[in-house]
Amino acid sequence: MRTSFLIDQIKKKQSFLIVGLDTDLDKIPKHLLKEEDPIFAFNKAIIDATQDLCVGYKPNTAFYEAYGLKGWEALEKTINYINETYPEQFTIADAKRGDIGNTSTRYAKAFFEDLNFDSVTVAPYMGKDSVEPFLAFKDKHTIMLALTSNQGAFDFQTQTINGQELYKHVLETSKSYENNDQLMYVVGATKAEYLTDIRAIIPEAFLLVPGVGAQGGSLREVCKYGMTEDIGLLVNSSRGIIYNSQGEDFAIAARNVAQQMQSEMQEILVQNS
Amino acid sequence: MRTSFLIDQIKKKQSFLIVGLDTDLDKIPKHLLKEEDPIFAFNKAIIDATQDLCVGYKPNTAFYEAYGLKGWEALEKTINYINETYPEQFTIADAKRGDIGNTSTRYAKAFFEDLNFDSVTVAPYMGKDSVEPFLAFKDKHTIMLALTSNQGAFDFQTQTINGQELYKHVLETSKSYENNDQLMYVVGATKAEYLTDIRAIIPEAFLLVPGVGAQGGSLREVCKYGMTEDIGLLVNSSRGIIYNSQGEDFAIAARNVAQQMQSEMQEILVQNS
Repeated sequence: MRTSFLIDQIKKKQSFLIVGLDTDLDKIPKHLLKEEDPIFAFNKAIIDATQDLCVGYKPNTAFYEAYGLKGWEALEKTINYINETYPEQFTIADAKRGDIGNTSTRYAKAFFEDLNFDSVTVAPYMGKDSVEPFLAFKDKHTIMLALTSNQGAFDFQTQTINGQELYKHVLETSKSYENNDQLMYVVGATKAEYLTDIRAIIPEAFLLVPGVGAQGGSLREVCKYGMTEDIGLLVNSSRGIIYNSQGEDFAIAARNVAQQMQSEMQEILVQNS
Repeated sequence: MRTSFLIDQIKKKQSFLIVGLDTDLDKIPKHLLKEEDPIFAFNKAIIDATQDLCVGYKPNTAFYEAYGLKGWEALEKTINYINETYPEQFTIADAKRGDIGNTSTRYAKAFFEDLNFDSVTVAPYMGKDSVEPFLAFKDKHTIMLALTSNQGAFDFQTQTINGQELYKHVLETSKSYENNDQLMYVVGATKAEYLTDIRAIIPEAFLLVPGVGAQGGSLREVCKYGMTEDIGLLVNSSRGIIYNSQGEDFAIAARNVAQQMQSEMQEILVQNS
């Protein structure tokens, strides 16, 4: 998907919401467990109920791998369902991959070709030749971890490297990577106060922002410091949206929260326009 | 697997060789492509031909994910075959995972419980709460990326952070993680000159060393600077072993190279004893 198409979708839907599909058999409504593929049944219902309120879906691969073959199959069915039924949705494989060159190419093929995701999250630790193989795929996006929403982010990411925090060094360095116009970055909503500094380094790039809601981040703070003329933000909510009811009404309950978030986003977009 | 058992195996076999199963349908002998599961057929033949010369196997998950469901199935069959037929082998899921706490637990379950690997490689960028969930599994090992064998390692890993290179900061910090006695580290053979400094920080921990052979690292250099009283090294070779013949004799050809490496290892072990 081209970035311009994504921006059009955001403007049309007045939403920059991404729904995270962290589907966990211990947390989905019990009545779904008798379905042939409970993970897919859950995802399909959530997608159908929220698709007009969000611009994308982000399955985290850990939740699927934990169920082995069945999990991988559910992931395939989910991405195929989205691509066939709602091709306007921006899809993110939250996989946090990265390896030496020829091996990263394998991961890129897995997510961009075999599964046909629009984007994949990538860990920066192994540097340029671990990231560029992902960037070689046209109209696909590589979302590098920059400043994550968890406590462990302070272990290394915010440590000072050559006079600059590591995450800034990651942002700066990645600007020299080939096809860097296809880069996006993960920046946790729990660290919104860092967004001014981040925007000084990457004024235009899209940020994927987890941590609003369940993890305590504020949508207004994120938008205040991170929003660009072309919006430049994709705000993800997973648990905060998908696990609001254990009953037959779980999809409606998810829709209600997605609706609240979309309304708040619309308000912000109107104020900023 | 307990570390003491692994050390016994190394002493018994006079080998600290790990065979990397980076199985690629474009590189395996053509006659295998008519098998029902060519990836597994190749792996099984390689394993049967090398198991007395090595102490472990390391499939890199990228190569399996690239083939989607079929790839994941081949990975399952491979690990099950090793665990059932050669339970004394140390198995490494080279997956380079890492995510926020509850999500890392999912990855740990996938590799330690569902697939029953002895160890998994983990990327350090997200810090403590992304690594400790792996360390919570008893008798399982977490192999953190420290200094990788690729060029991109110089982007961030060797940059100076608070007066110390990032990879040293990773080693140092990880020593405070809970159950850190189950930690091992990836250190590329292409950077053997760094091993003295590394051993000053982690004198005892096992190192998984890729990059000998195909990538240009020297086994003798690695042993000179990295070997401990309990050996403390696992040297991996993937392409250097498994792709030596396109003919019916591919497994024998792999055995021949593994045999050479084992002989060289035995020589070093005898010299050092």
